[in-house]
Amino acid sequence: MELDRRDPSAVRAAIRAGRWKGATAGLAPGRVQANLVVLPASLAYDFLRFCVANPKPCPLIEVTEAGSPEPALSAPGADLRTDLPRFRVFREGALDGEVEDVAELWRDDLVAFLIGCSFTFERALMAAGLPVRHIEEQVNVPMYRTSIGCSPAGAFSGPMVVSMRPYEPAQALRAAQVTSRFPTVHGAPVHLGDPAAIGIADLDSPDYGDRVTVRSGEVPVFWACGVTPQAAAAAARPELMITHAPGHMFVTDLRDDEQAIL
Amino acid sequence: MELDRRDPSAVRAAIRAGRWKGATAGLAPGRVQANLVVLPASLAYDFLRFCVANPKPCPLIEVTEAGSPEPALSAPGADLRTDLPRFRVFREGALDGEVEDVAELWRDDLVAFLIGCSFTFERALMAAGLPVRHIEEQVNVPMYRTSIGCSPAGAFSGPMVVSMRPYEPAQALRAAQVTSRFPTVHGAPVHLGDPAAIGIADLDSPDYGDRVTVRSGEVPVFWACGVTPQAAAAAARPELMITHAPGHMFVTDLRDDEQAIL
Repeated sequence: MELDRRDPSAVRAAIRAGRWKGATAGLAPGRVQANLVVLPASLAYDFLRFCVANPKPCPLIEVTEAGSPEPALSAPGADLRTDLPRFRVFREGALDGEVEDVAELWRDDLVAFLIGCSFTFERALMAAGLPVRHIEEQVNVPMYRTSIGCSPAGAFSGPMVVSMRPYEPAQALRAAQVTSRFPTVHGAPVHLGDPAAIGIADLDSPDYGDRVTVRSGEVPVFWACGVTPQAAAAAARPELMITHAPGHMFVTDLRDDEQAIL
Repeated sequence: MELDRRDPSAVRAAIRAGRWKGATAGLAPGRVQANLVVLPASLAYDFLRFCVANPKPCPLIEVTEAGSPEPALSAPGADLRTDLPRFRVFREGALDGEVEDVAELWRDDLVAFLIGCSFTFERALMAAGLPVRHIEEQVNVPMYRTSIGCSPAGAFSGPMVVSMRPYEPAQALRAAQVTSRFPTVHGAPVHLGDPAAIGIADLDSPDYGDRVTVRSGEVPVFWACGVTPQAAAAAARPELMITHAPGHMFVTDLRDDEQAIL
């Protein structure tokens, strides 16, 4: 049976059935894809406060009821234990392995956080005729830990992680306008130009993802990144944390264009 | 000593010292004023989830550490027990009285939520040359309970409460543009035109605030309102809830214009 890649529930069903095990970029175009962070309920309140206090890197799409794996608002009927192609399991903050479902790890005290991802605004950038370098070069977006501190909440603190896309100056200004329309998925850039000004020593050595080419006449443009809350959660060394594996996101029913505030 | 009304910390100091006991409209112009809801920590997580699930009526500015009356991000050094001119105290969801400070009621398990208020976007409307009828008529904005349900979270649920401002059609469209820039203070309208379509039986009988004149050729325009979370919290009948008294808001250091996303 051919997968209808346009239908988000068909995509999730294929993932659940093990018929799709790859990355989710390009699936269900126009639908919001989300970062996943699952934590024990004992940490959920402070993690929620951390996200609320740092909305640019941690834009919350949904928080589930404790014990419920169903994101009732953004994908009713879906199951977060099985509907992502690949998960990472962390114990005491250290990566313990990657798995294709987490049904056996699920507990009644787990809470799932869905956090916006830059796929939404990258589609808007491309629709506006702006190139996205890491997509052109078929690699992961370069991401960097910065000297910009997040507002702490309980056990959660840490630096803002940013993603980078290079643009010519006029393109950078247009990219700032386009992404400003999407405050629920990171919104406008947080910096452009000199990487050292936000504590990045070497643009060619990202902390996550891959390096991309910055051409003569281009400036690096930096957006707050959804890896920020994942890194802050790991640093708090929770006994158990489950996340999506990089690039293997949760596909919601929400439409990217609904996220645009104007 | 004359009060420097432009300085938010001077305004808060005057309120704390009992030298200002009135409403806060017009104080510290250009600074964000906030709705206050204080609840026991046992309810704070679900109330926070309620706000996150209903961002238009419940735009969170800050959530304090349990027991701390200091809004460390939006007004460092301020004290939420004393720095509002008037509070309301609710027990089991029923109004128990109004007081000028809540120092004696404060407990180590209380959490304060600061929620955006329409003062911010009303300033933007007036700066754009758009009249604001209830300000012209020197009354409170009319507010209505609607048939639009909020997404529930734990004990918290209820209808969206909206505020209404009448405009000619072209003004209404411009007002939608202007307020769209402020997603952290209710953002764009949720409805315009027929009140019955959102369950409002009589525009001249608001559920909160005062009626205003709707002139021939004008349509009512409805925005999500910060009374929504207060009403949802009262309906959950918490043993103790403290809020600001209507019109007697908390003055933060944040600038209205910083809230504009573009």
